[in-house]
Amino acid sequence: MKKPRTQDKGHEAARGRITPGSPVPSPSPMDEGRRRVAIEHVQPEIDGGRYPIKRVVGETVVVEADLFADGHDLVRGVLRYRHAQQEGWQETPLEFLTNDRWQASFETRELGRYCYGVMGWIDHFATWQRDMRKRLGVQHDVSVDLVIGTRLIEEALSRASGESGRQLKAIAEAISASQHDAQRHIELLLGEDVTALMAACTDRRWATTYDKELVVVVDRPRARFSAWYEMFPRSIVEADQPHGTFRDCEARLPYIADMGFDVLYLPPIHPIGKTHRKGKNNNPRGDSDSAGSPWAIGARDGGHTAIHSQLGTLDDFSRLVTAAKTQGIEIALDIAFQCSPDHPYVTEHPEWFTTRPDGTIQFAENPPKQYQDIFPINFESPAYRELWTELRGVVQYWIDHGIRIFRVDNPHTKSFLFWKWLIADITARHPDIIFLAEAFTRPKVMYHLAKIGFTQSYTYFAWRTTKAELTDYFTELTHTEVREFFRPNLWPNTPDILTEQLQHGGRATFMARLTLAATLGASYGMYGPAFELCEARPQKPGSEEYLDSEKYEIRHWDITRADSLRDFIGLINRIRRDNPALQHDATLQFHPVDNDQLIAYSKQSPDGENVILVVVNLSPHHVHSGWLDLDLATLGLQADRPFQVHDLLTHAYYQWQGSRNYVQIDPHSVPAQIFAVRRTMRREQDFDYFL
Amino acid sequence: MKKPRTQDKGHEAARGRITPGSPVPSPSPMDEGRRRVAIEHVQPEIDGGRYPIKRVVGETVVVEADLFADGHDLVRGVLRYRHAQQEGWQETPLEFLTNDRWQASFETRELGRYCYGVMGWIDHFATWQRDMRKRLGVQHDVSVDLVIGTRLIEEALSRASGESGRQLKAIAEAISASQHDAQRHIELLLGEDVTALMAACTDRRWATTYDKELVVVVDRPRARFSAWYEMFPRSIVEADQPHGTFRDCEARLPYIADMGFDVLYLPPIHPIGKTHRKGKNNNPRGDSDSAGSPWAIGARDGGHTAIHSQLGTLDDFSRLVTAAKTQGIEIALDIAFQCSPDHPYVTEHPEWFTTRPDGTIQFAENPPKQYQDIFPINFESPAYRELWTELRGVVQYWIDHGIRIFRVDNPHTKSFLFWKWLIADITARHPDIIFLAEAFTRPKVMYHLAKIGFTQSYTYFAWRTTKAELTDYFTELTHTEVREFFRPNLWPNTPDILTEQLQHGGRATFMARLTLAATLGASYGMYGPAFELCEARPQKPGSEEYLDSEKYEIRHWDITRADSLRDFIGLINRIRRDNPALQHDATLQFHPVDNDQLIAYSKQSPDGENVILVVVNLSPHHVHSGWLDLDLATLGLQADRPFQVHDLLTHAYYQWQGSRNYVQIDPHSVPAQIFAVRRTMRREQDFDYFL
Repeated sequence: MKKPRTQDKGHEAARGRITPGSPVPSPSPMDEGRRRVAIEHVQPEIDGGRYPIKRVVGETVVVEADLFADGHDLVRGVLRYRHAQQEGWQETPLEFLTNDRWQASFETRELGRYCYGVMGWIDHFATWQRDMRKRLGVQHDVSVDLVIGTRLIEEALSRASGESGRQLKAIAEAISASQHDAQRHIELLLGEDVTALMAACTDRRWATTYDKELVVVVDRPRARFSAWYEMFPRSIVEADQPHGTFRDCEARLPYIADMGFDVLYLPPIHPIGKTHRKGKNNNPRGDSDSAGSPWAIGARDGGHTAIHSQLGTLDDFSRLVTAAKTQGIEIALDIAFQCSPDHPYVTEHPEWFTTRPDGTIQFAENPPKQYQDIFPINFESPAYRELWTELRGVVQYWIDHGIRIFRVDNPHTKSFLFWKWLIADITARHPDIIFLAEAFTRPKVMYHLAKIGFTQSYTYFAWRTTKAELTDYFTELTHTEVREFFRPNLWPNTPDILTEQLQHGGRATFMARLTLAATLGASYGMYGPAFELCEARPQKPGSEEYLDSEKYEIRHWDITRADSLRDFIGLINRIRRDNPALQHDATLQFHPVDNDQLIAYSKQSPDGENVILVVVNLSPHHVHSGWLDLDLATLGLQADRPFQVHDLLTHAYYQWQGSRNYVQIDPHSVPAQIFAVRRTMRREQDFDYFL
Repeated sequence: MKKPRTQDKGHEAARGRITPGSPVPSPSPMDEGRRRVAIEHVQPEIDGGRYPIKRVVGETVVVEADLFADGHDLVRGVLRYRHAQQEGWQETPLEFLTNDRWQASFETRELGRYCYGVMGWIDHFATWQRDMRKRLGVQHDVSVDLVIGTRLIEEALSRASGESGRQLKAIAEAISASQHDAQRHIELLLGEDVTALMAACTDRRWATTYDKELVVVVDRPRARFSAWYEMFPRSIVEADQPHGTFRDCEARLPYIADMGFDVLYLPPIHPIGKTHRKGKNNNPRGDSDSAGSPWAIGARDGGHTAIHSQLGTLDDFSRLVTAAKTQGIEIALDIAFQCSPDHPYVTEHPEWFTTRPDGTIQFAENPPKQYQDIFPINFESPAYRELWTELRGVVQYWIDHGIRIFRVDNPHTKSFLFWKWLIADITARHPDIIFLAEAFTRPKVMYHLAKIGFTQSYTYFAWRTTKAELTDYFTELTHTEVREFFRPNLWPNTPDILTEQLQHGGRATFMARLTLAATLGASYGMYGPAFELCEARPQKPGSEEYLDSEKYEIRHWDITRADSLRDFIGLINRIRRDNPALQHDATLQFHPVDNDQLIAYSKQSPDGENVILVVVNLSPHHVHSGWLDLDLATLGLQADRPFQVHDLLTHAYYQWQGSRNYVQIDPHSVPAQIFAVRRTMRREQDFDYFL
């Protein structure tokens, strides 16, 4: 009979074992037959260990696993972990939870990748101690059992070393000295110190090691907590100038810093193609003085590593990067791997594109729509290796010029394997690099991009507008395994997305959406100055495109307008910085309100000290009120104890008690309340309260 | 920097890729960079593919997977499967469901093991056709696009073969002949026949194959549907005889066959040890004429392959096996791998046991309890390979003597790896062998034993008595992934388990528990004649042990008693045989009743033709009635159409309509109703109804 050719590890035993009477249970290695501990359902583990989870420096990975063995012997286990660049494992004991479930955790102290796994074995000495305690006073003669316990210690001496070895040796001697003092003998064998010493040198010859090494990618804190501001440099311009420059951007930095942003994302800064250049409002026939789309990358004077001459020089750019840093702002560049027909690659590497039978190069299409100003790269090119290496060079070039954050344009239209390779390759050398995936596509594709390496991801937030939609979506993002690998970055608008809600909701909607983005997400961003100036005119009814979009022309924004949201944005970002609760997503918890126009949710700092409760009125038109039903347990509040909520937007203080409390919000003033929840109140307030 | 040593397949790209500037994205093989399809969440898959799922011959495996690629090209995929002894894969196309989810299925036609997996690729021609249809009538000039489509077909010719190859060639020629008839040209390129032919020979050079081969173990139908009867051969005896024999068992067969059982399970039939032999009611000091426990296996005249002389000879046993077969009954033997002190192994292979410092062999203990009549086998023995091989020999011995079903005693107290190896080894040569795991232990251990190979498993049924307990437990067994690997075998009693409920519930409880076991489980069993005679006396209050247990003495049962449940049992088993719905567990569905003493559930045959609805009164004392709220959709019933329910126990007929219907059950007659649900009624009944 042929060998079954299954590759299922779970059934190694079957392989090669179908010849009758073979004496040895191959292919088990020599000792495998005595491994008695089973390990199952290790968590966190994404897709059977195919993909890593994510953390930032200083966070904790809590690992759980089922550990059990045949029979009634005691099982022990450890969580093993190491930085990928370290050789040896560090260990921490697994603690028993319940129902054969065990848990331990470790802290991710350094950037890069950690591996973790679980190991378990039978603890014969602990088992002996447990049984011995049961025998005492019941079993008539325990002398042989005492010898067994003593021998276990003597065997252990060969495995013990260092100080614990010396201590164990001392105990062993004390035991042999007490042979004739049964009581003393028993006390020594059941002592807690010997338990600990024996545990430190248990026999692990037949320990079971979980068959996968799991991985956690450790990023810097900004990967988790960041506030992004997107702006077109060419529009940062006084009315009398034709084209904004990096110098102008430098002058704009204080304005952005005052609003409290820490990432300034610039759309592509490279030369723009002339061939088929788009005109205003995406007019396919752009005239000679059209600014063109920054995403039509590449012209005679260079491609992805060149700078659009009207913006300035590479030195100007470096100045901007440095100046920004001094104000606590990082510059993020756009990675848009596509080319204008004038891009040097087109002539130097036609093999990286698709050539049509008529000899022309295939431009971007979404039939019947055509985008003649863009040539997509062909990732099925036989020369893909040289292509990948070249594109990696582009990223490396900007890293070498001080960039540590990249916003990747449409990653879902390029090869997954390319991104997996590129991000792993770059971060192996530069573990502080952050890649934000600008993929607005199907959910499984968005999650896959996060699994294969993207640090942060755009989300569906812009189109989640009702209480039910927001609750469902953010519960999925923060309370399923998605939270382990997908870091949401929430944008109420982008140059491509002026939602219907923003078009019609007016100022109150801009404020509400900002509050939601900045408090539902530890990372969020906005496209300005369009956002703070509440720009809401669509190109045409039913379109999400901006009228006179900056994608195709230079806009002059009057950022000094009295109705600008800049101060409100600044306040929101200050609240985010002052309250660690808003710098994490995992603790997000929704609380019922008996009014569908009011949404309420809380977040907490990991230590539980800082608690923020947010209530937003989703209607821009009407005052709404309702009864909030707080989950007191989650918030660490006691039903019988008053607590204080302090609205950080209006500085109003309220004293609440119990789970049901009244809220009312007038969207015409501020459409939201951001409460700091103080569990124990200051004395004088207690006094007021009991007066 | 050192290489990261991660083993996470998801991050191969990272390995060895941290030397800057290396030109080739190793370690990806040559073509891997062009694999654009991702495959995730393949189901069914147990523990990341570590363990197989289970089916019986003729069942279907429905496989689902997420398949998607970058960009907008069309993805195609196949489910691949093959019997483990076949070389080549069979394929069936995956059908798109929704949200990037795909599905296909295959039938398990032969005993043994099948492997299955998923493969996906980009279908460039189907993509071209889709885009071409969009261009027509919109795009001015499609001539170049037509050339592209034509070339795709020309390339495909090299991959096409056989009849489809010839057809494709013919079409290619027709196309080139129609160069100047654009309309004809387009029709040919978009024709359905060419679509099919091209699909048959798509370019799979860069197809993605799911990285695991999953396994399904295929058993014979009795693995899923069986009715077990357990009986002690030594008790099958006329009052004037000392000890029952295999001949007596032969005479008892018609009685068992009349009750409708198809498996007769005999406790160990081997010589019983004399040393420390137990007396009646587990008296540690058995006198010379004690029968002893059949589980104290082994004496001077042999061990696990010998037969207790008072039962008869090996020939008598073979006669019994044959006689049983002629009456549709299979004999199941007990595999209890433990030894009495008199077992030949003890002297021949002391290394297979644990020797204490005083030279004695360690007997079974659960401190402070001691079982001097049993020596447990030490699976940590250095000689475990010889031990495993010997024990496999025991199983093989009884297989060679006609046994195909084994009930394994306390498998959870022996090495998991041993069972995994033994079952894989035996079933590789004898795929029709059935192993029932008698493990009453923690849930994860019970599930693990099923995962590593046991065909059927005992359950917690005996202790699940309330409506809530039964609903929760059987929902877990039939509506979670557990259903894929764990086949429940439900026993209301065993020689070790006389539940408190049976002790106090009387006849009605025996009938109710029998009905529950036989209809909740496609496989169930009972320990008789104790069960049909409603034996309910515990050894002492609070104990689940029988008084005068057959485990320690020979009992004389009067199976002719008028109050025997034999006829009711026979009726229940006939109903099970006549109704395929009761021969499957996966379709189990509970239906609400507004009375906690009434539990209702339905099952259906795979084709949905046979529908059984069971209602049981859980109270043995009182008549209970209530309103049943049927899930009509599940049952394939229409709210506006009357349907007939026919109680197969009482032959009462009812006409019901809609979801809410009234039920009333008097436990003093029959504590249950087993309704055959007939969706469309016979004409004359329709007539009655509309009269």
